[in-house]
Amino acid sequence: MAVVGAGMTAFGEHFALGLKDLLPMAFSECAASVDKGLDKSDLQGAWFGAMGTADGFPAGILADSLGLPDLPVTRVENSCATGNDAIRNALFGVASGAFDVALVMGADKLRDTTSRDMLWEWEAMARDYPLGVVSPAGFALHVRRYLHESPATREHLAMIAVKNHRHGVQNTKARLRFEITVEQALAAPIVVTPFGLYDCAPQSDGAAALVLAAEEVVDRFTDRPVWIRGVGLGLDSVMHQHKSDMTTMPATVRAAKQAFSMAGLTPSDVDVAEVHDFFTGIELISYEDLGFAERFGGHKLVEAEVTTIGGGLPVNPSGGLKAKGHPPGATGVAQCVELFAQLRGEAVNQVDGARIGLAHNIGGPTAVAAVTILEGVGNGAS
Amino acid sequence: MAVVGAGMTAFGEHFALGLKDLLPMAFSECAASVDKGLDKSDLQGAWFGAMGTADGFPAGILADSLGLPDLPVTRVENSCATGNDAIRNALFGVASGAFDVALVMGADKLRDTTSRDMLWEWEAMARDYPLGVVSPAGFALHVRRYLHESPATREHLAMIAVKNHRHGVQNTKARLRFEITVEQALAAPIVVTPFGLYDCAPQSDGAAALVLAAEEVVDRFTDRPVWIRGVGLGLDSVMHQHKSDMTTMPATVRAAKQAFSMAGLTPSDVDVAEVHDFFTGIELISYEDLGFAERFGGHKLVEAEVTTIGGGLPVNPSGGLKAKGHPPGATGVAQCVELFAQLRGEAVNQVDGARIGLAHNIGGPTAVAAVTILEGVGNGAS
Repeated sequence: MAVVGAGMTAFGEHFALGLKDLLPMAFSECAASVDKGLDKSDLQGAWFGAMGTADGFPAGILADSLGLPDLPVTRVENSCATGNDAIRNALFGVASGAFDVALVMGADKLRDTTSRDMLWEWEAMARDYPLGVVSPAGFALHVRRYLHESPATREHLAMIAVKNHRHGVQNTKARLRFEITVEQALAAPIVVTPFGLYDCAPQSDGAAALVLAAEEVVDRFTDRPVWIRGVGLGLDSVMHQHKSDMTTMPATVRAAKQAFSMAGLTPSDVDVAEVHDFFTGIELISYEDLGFAERFGGHKLVEAEVTTIGGGLPVNPSGGLKAKGHPPGATGVAQCVELFAQLRGEAVNQVDGARIGLAHNIGGPTAVAAVTILEGVGNGAS
Repeated sequence: MAVVGAGMTAFGEHFALGLKDLLPMAFSECAASVDKGLDKSDLQGAWFGAMGTADGFPAGILADSLGLPDLPVTRVENSCATGNDAIRNALFGVASGAFDVALVMGADKLRDTTSRDMLWEWEAMARDYPLGVVSPAGFALHVRRYLHESPATREHLAMIAVKNHRHGVQNTKARLRFEITVEQALAAPIVVTPFGLYDCAPQSDGAAALVLAAEEVVDRFTDRPVWIRGVGLGLDSVMHQHKSDMTTMPATVRAAKQAFSMAGLTPSDVDVAEVHDFFTGIELISYEDLGFAERFGGHKLVEAEVTTIGGGLPVNPSGGLKAKGHPPGATGVAQCVELFAQLRGEAVNQVDGARIGLAHNIGGPTAVAAVTILEGVGNGAS
């Protein structure tokens, strides 16, 4: 199965727009990217990743706003892993033989006082699982312990922020398009130790779209498909007191293992990755959980600029959640929009010769992860 | 693919219980129903239908509360069609070849002031789609017009209430286990014209579970499987002003068409059905949309007692949403729990010789429907 089209809105504070506006914007760009054209009637089924929106019935808004009342739409929600899990479910739909062509969309509308408050309250105060901490604090517990046990320091977190901000400058879809220095990152106000302001990604509004096609019909749409080689979804205990080791996230390890196994690939095959940098320290820990670095060795990749554009394994060439922004339902789908461009040699921050790309989400706060592995035809250089 | 196990909690006001309690209760009954036994490690993937719960991160609660952190769980939400759409997505997962054995669960926890208020507010006040009416009022607009255009009357609605209450008396899982008379139904306080109190189903708490197995592994679990023959999901415009005809629900027509087409069956093949009687008039209209009755002829089935136990096509032998209660995420899955029993000849209100069963949900309020068609080996009689 392949991705034959991809598009997204800019991420940002779209105060005047709702899901009903953002979805058609992302879909239009996606449809226009299909080399041989896409007719709406080609779409047979849809999966819609939406997490915290308060705009109304999500599946219905998608069908309505695209003018496709005949389209069966399933909403998938899996915390911050929603986007890549929507892709995974669409893949199952097509692989089952029920559909040849499926639409995957992800969107969220959080920059609105009411819904933002609801999202935080939901996480901190949920009836059965009262974490008692909002999202940054939940992730900070992991990273604080990680900095204690590993040689990594707050400087390494700052270097990741600097890298992703630099990558984001050229991305017209990114929300924070400015460079920062390590000094600025370290001097920024503390949100929750060890995260300063620049260690955190901005919750945002936005939408993203992909069109998936079964192998038999790919040529109807493009001669330059990007193949989906592997998908994985991993869970872990929700509550922090049930986690035996705060310095690794089993959800990511499980999701990556499934995706690499399905793809028949290993972490060393990956040429470019979009990793869930909701907080800088999560990108760092994820290097290890995804198999890109040895245990407690993630900081070495940062120091050697391996994960910077020009390095051996660029991570978050789009700017990541850090610079691009984070509408949870859209984020995973948007990661694959970036990889679609990368693996066709059309990205703004193009990774030369990129053939294998990996997208990764983690959320809930660290109770679920999803991984998607894509393969393009390569783009010369290398 | 087949259902090899099924179980559910009683539906009701479980004030002292949360999803973390209800899910293991339903799962235990489901696991115990697997003839040759089920080991938790047999489960490779899970789909969880949850709509309006405020208990916390749904997928994580399921994995946590069953003690299965390795299980990849996707939460599906599709308004009141959530349950049957969760089954549909699990079917795609197994049919894709990614899994041999999958768990489907549905649950909701609504009888709690905070979350109940949130659910109603969400529907009436959603940002993009401000219906401005709560759920009973939205459905009433359809039924009022239907009673105006068809020969059906409020007496027919009352007869459906009487039938489903009668069916529910024997069902130990039902919330309202008492009979009523047509006179009582007609004299009850009006909730919203034309619905009196007994035309409405009670929002409730509860959970339900199914285990699905690929054909190749079915005999590891049972010699009496119930096969899934068809699934369908249909959408329609969300807002009432965009509906061209209030007396039929295109979402149901679309879902049924897909499911019957996949099954290679027609409505006349169905022996027993669980139909979404959130309101009595919706069961009536759905007879027509599902193809059980001709246009504006639904009331004839009621008058002739065709849809009562003992009739030609018993509908809602479980008592339906009307008597059983309606935890939206659980409802569709629980319908298939009832059909699993019916198609194995083990139901409390057994339909003699039942071989083909159909489950139907509609919601959003009438913007989405899901249909599942099951086939058993028959059970002698008829």
